[in-house]
Amino acid sequence: MRVGIASIGISRFGRRNDVNVFDLAFESIEEVFNEGFISPEDIDYIVFTSTGFTPEFSPAGIYNEYVGLNPKAVHRVEAACASGSAGIYTAYNMVKSGMADNVLVLGLEKMNELETPSAVEYLARLGSYFWEVRDYGITFPGYYALFMTRYMYEYGATEEDFCLVAVKNHYYGARNPKAQYQREVTLEMCMESRYISRPIKLYDCSPITDGSAAIVISSEDSIKRLGVDTPIWIEAIGSASMPASLTGRTSFTSIESARLAAGKAYQMAGIEDPIGVVDVATVHDCFTIAEVLAYEDLGFAKPGEGVNLIRDGETYIGGKIPVNLDGGLKAKGHPVGATGIAMYVEIVKQLRGEAERGRQAPIKKGVGLTHNIGGIGQYAYVSILRR
Amino acid sequence: MRVGIASIGISRFGRRNDVNVFDLAFESIEEVFNEGFISPEDIDYIVFTSTGFTPEFSPAGIYNEYVGLNPKAVHRVEAACASGSAGIYTAYNMVKSGMADNVLVLGLEKMNELETPSAVEYLARLGSYFWEVRDYGITFPGYYALFMTRYMYEYGATEEDFCLVAVKNHYYGARNPKAQYQREVTLEMCMESRYISRPIKLYDCSPITDGSAAIVISSEDSIKRLGVDTPIWIEAIGSASMPASLTGRTSFTSIESARLAAGKAYQMAGIEDPIGVVDVATVHDCFTIAEVLAYEDLGFAKPGEGVNLIRDGETYIGGKIPVNLDGGLKAKGHPVGATGIAMYVEIVKQLRGEAERGRQAPIKKGVGLTHNIGGIGQYAYVSILRR
Repeated sequence: MRVGIASIGISRFGRRNDVNVFDLAFESIEEVFNEGFISPEDIDYIVFTSTGFTPEFSPAGIYNEYVGLNPKAVHRVEAACASGSAGIYTAYNMVKSGMADNVLVLGLEKMNELETPSAVEYLARLGSYFWEVRDYGITFPGYYALFMTRYMYEYGATEEDFCLVAVKNHYYGARNPKAQYQREVTLEMCMESRYISRPIKLYDCSPITDGSAAIVISSEDSIKRLGVDTPIWIEAIGSASMPASLTGRTSFTSIESARLAAGKAYQMAGIEDPIGVVDVATVHDCFTIAEVLAYEDLGFAKPGEGVNLIRDGETYIGGKIPVNLDGGLKAKGHPVGATGIAMYVEIVKQLRGEAERGRQAPIKKGVGLTHNIGGIGQYAYVSILRR
Repeated sequence: MRVGIASIGISRFGRRNDVNVFDLAFESIEEVFNEGFISPEDIDYIVFTSTGFTPEFSPAGIYNEYVGLNPKAVHRVEAACASGSAGIYTAYNMVKSGMADNVLVLGLEKMNELETPSAVEYLARLGSYFWEVRDYGITFPGYYALFMTRYMYEYGATEEDFCLVAVKNHYYGARNPKAQYQREVTLEMCMESRYISRPIKLYDCSPITDGSAAIVISSEDSIKRLGVDTPIWIEAIGSASMPASLTGRTSFTSIESARLAAGKAYQMAGIEDPIGVVDVATVHDCFTIAEVLAYEDLGFAKPGEGVNLIRDGETYIGGKIPVNLDGGLKAKGHPVGATGIAMYVEIVKQLRGEAERGRQAPIKKGVGLTHNIGGIGQYAYVSILRR
């Protein structure tokens, strides 16, 4: 029995002072039901994913009430910035076990409710708080600056190389009407932006974002019964962890948990080499260096050679493996608890052939991939979807 | 393929200023592995349940590192005071789907890290924060006072009746070496205790508790392979929700979601009438009124007649259906994110025949039940376990 995706929805991402949290959730839910395949009464269970930028300490029940899904059961899933993927994995298991036919996964974060310094501190607390954040004062740009520095030292990459990731992702963000930044940036704009945590500059960072995304995970029988016209199947979800604290790390040029999760996902999907098989991927580009690490951890390039993919334009449409054609976390935005679901929504759109003009990948093998990291790798999920 | 419980562990509950959060988690983990059936390398995935009384905003990854379970994947599950049951349901589905052989579910809350007034405010935020807590200033004792008042009005119950629940649960708490309050209380002590939110008195309330609990959910094949000597099987888990805000309620003498969850669980387990079938139960007695409501929502008594069960001593050992022989939330304590797991641990001990002298139920049919509520019913889980 296969497990697939019956419906998707996503809100506009950005600084959404125009809506409250409930209306922000509803923007995604409304799209899900407006696709016309599924009704609220078809839903068996709701998984809500959010790290908790809200004074509601147990938000799942409140959202469930607001969107009108009582008396269906609900709980919240949290795995820092990988919460969305952990929630989808939960729903996948509920359907695969036969306990549910259709599970709605709803992810939301309204990060601009807090003032920016607080949001940055909040994000840092998704790292190793007691040890590294409180005692040493590190922030997320600080964490990734360590990786970028080491990568530059080991492989001779330059700050320009990483800015090329920002240029690519803003190029596609400019073509995505849901993206936070719908404008292109040049290499010069990125290079001239101020340092946040050297060598990471402002344009190397993903923004603070308000947004929601939703998806319905369904059994093959249910998908047939509902008459879903272009079902997308979940072929594999690989997951792994690693120490949260950086003192437990042996490498700063790879996220080992992502490498393990990818290995499991490829094995489950029967993929030996993703190049030539994966038509399109979304990867966790919370910082530009993170996208380059993802290329290598996912086997798109050998260690030290990920930077060549962006230098050679191989992750644009027309290249070896197009990546983040929605703008990525970098330009589309990164509402942390919703991000993993937004990645799935994007791959489903791509595999269905529904992405906007200028950002639709050619779909040859019908295979897509998502790569979602929480914290600095203490959570990692890699998924393979197939049309 | 059945799904069962390979191993259990629980910390001492109470005001645990003698340990930090990590050592509190380890007390349960250590018991799990010391049972001798399972080793860390057998674990495929970790589900961490906690509502978040901690400055670590994404604690799952940190605990996973501390207890030495990298690179196994982990995420956090939260459903207010029903987080533990939602976590077990997640693990149950992972095993039943065939994606995992053994899943460790670890629940923890260290509520005394916050000063008591803050803990009470924190707890209130597990209700409907924006609407009822912030705007109207309600607290959890306030929520349940509404239920107790209405129950007294409709059915002629008295404050003494509810104090009888406290007397029973403290009687058993006094016989449980892990309980927060290992001492009996008399009806007079309860009746003379001060009002917290009239008619709820101090001794009608469960305490603020530090504690952890852990359980390993495994496939039937794995349980055989590991040589578990007294496996306990999960026959059914029923779940449901209802509006978080009380303005959406039609009854204050029942938690409708619990009634629905129980109906589903009984149907799945093929139980028509729990009396004479269920040997022992743990129910969510966050307040004494909540235990009486549970009797009725679970079908142990008809509406309005739950109070007779406690008046007649029918929920003591030797009665129709013994309830909360570990002291319940009332005397054992209520570390909110760990409570659902602690309930399972207790039922497993009872069905194995391993409870301490004076609090072991006679096991005739080999059937146990747990009833776990989150918030004021926006989360509800009822489970049936069988030896």
